[in-house]
Amino acid sequence: MKKICLKITYDGTNYSGWQRQENAVSVQQIIENSIEKLTKSKTSIVGASRTDAGVHAFDQTACFETSSNIPADKFALALNTILPDDIRIKTSYEVPNDFHPIKSSKFKTYQYKIFNEQYSSAIYRNISYHVPYKLNINAMNDAAQILIGIHDFKAFQAAGSSAKTSIRTIYSSKVECKDCFIIYSVKGDGFLYNMVRIIVGTLVEIGKGKLKTENIEKALKSGNRIDLGPTAPAKGLILLKIDY
Amino acid sequence: MKKICLKITYDGTNYSGWQRQENAVSVQQIIENSIEKLTKSKTSIVGASRTDAGVHAFDQTACFETSSNIPADKFALALNTILPDDIRIKTSYEVPNDFHPIKSSKFKTYQYKIFNEQYSSAIYRNISYHVPYKLNINAMNDAAQILIGIHDFKAFQAAGSSAKTSIRTIYSSKVECKDCFIIYSVKGDGFLYNMVRIIVGTLVEIGKGKLKTENIEKALKSGNRIDLGPTAPAKGLILLKIDY
Repeated sequence: MKKICLKITYDGTNYSGWQRQENAVSVQQIIENSIEKLTKSKTSIVGASRTDAGVHAFDQTACFETSSNIPADKFALALNTILPDDIRIKTSYEVPNDFHPIKSSKFKTYQYKIFNEQYSSAIYRNISYHVPYKLNINAMNDAAQILIGIHDFKAFQAAGSSAKTSIRTIYSSKVECKDCFIIYSVKGDGFLYNMVRIIVGTLVEIGKGKLKTENIEKALKSGNRIDLGPTAPAKGLILLKIDY
Repeated sequence: MKKICLKITYDGTNYSGWQRQENAVSVQQIIENSIEKLTKSKTSIVGASRTDAGVHAFDQTACFETSSNIPADKFALALNTILPDDIRIKTSYEVPNDFHPIKSSKFKTYQYKIFNEQYSSAIYRNISYHVPYKLNINAMNDAAQILIGIHDFKAFQAAGSSAKTSIRTIYSSKVECKDCFIIYSVKGDGFLYNMVRIIVGTLVEIGKGKLKTENIEKALKSGNRIDLGPTAPAKGLILLKIDY
């Protein structure tokens, strides 16, 4: 048996998210089926991030064990001939048996795209969140800085989260204009369920002038979800990178 | 009667192109139907660029005449409530009767996106051309410079072109890396049928080392389509801007 690591990119629009589930088509299931087709044996893969329905990935990481004699680096090319074109394997390689996509990861980087015009984006409609109100980008970026460091992000998680601790370290957090988007980028050692989308929903309210930087400071102390803005839509979010 | 100008953005993936035609769904037809629904009278619109099937627009310009008493600037918002989300009206405003989307235009700018990795892009698959071979970007950019100026672009048009003259002025033409793409941008006073896609197909051959800058020089003299590379796919092309 050898352990193969896949670097994966996908458009989450047509999937129920990463995680395999009943009565819905997930990215994990599609990839597992493709590996089974290739290796002729039942396979289960473990992904580094359980992205939600509609969330995209530029660099998801997942592993599986196989006794197939297909060379590790050939899985990428072979799987891409089977997979639908909204899921692509970027590279494949062998990893030591003790490598674990979640436990071995050091940092994760997410990016969130806001399309800030009166009209929504025709071309980027599935990969951006349309906000038709004028946003104060400087205020949003100032507020984004507050999140950097070690904090208890209890307020920044959706109900039903199963994480043992809500303490996380954020290494960078910024809002900037790029091409036709306002982009929020955040790098941390890990993220709670819906954490990035709650941050963005809050930053948008700050950009509108409806919330202030102080609301984030308050939420970091109170741990109350209610002190923050709404959860921004899934489709603006992309898992950009996982560092090991 | 007043003349209304629309600035339009669309994802060309699901359309047979801009131009109305039998037995296929065009962007023009969808917009005309929406205007008719709104104004309750038959309308015909004239677009500045007859983009092909699969080609996208960030800033198409089109005009129509109407006796409707809807204020000119309200058409954008009203039409966006009727149109599908892959076609959006950016703005609408009244123009003088002698304004013509094609004849009044001064410059057009197109952009073409190449995705230059082993794997194709899952997320940008409908708005980029996948080239899995290593490309020499400097050689492509050097060749792109040759096109700047006033030239007879006879060799750079598809068969069946109806243009009276094939002389065009190119103001800028460059190849650069940006994010995950190789981008070709070109600005000119007008373009022949498939001209940008033939330029890109030729630049890609130059990037591969299969053609040279001299092939472009030769084609500009000979007027022979055969001296150039293949026509690059429609989906990488976007009509970026029309200046008036």
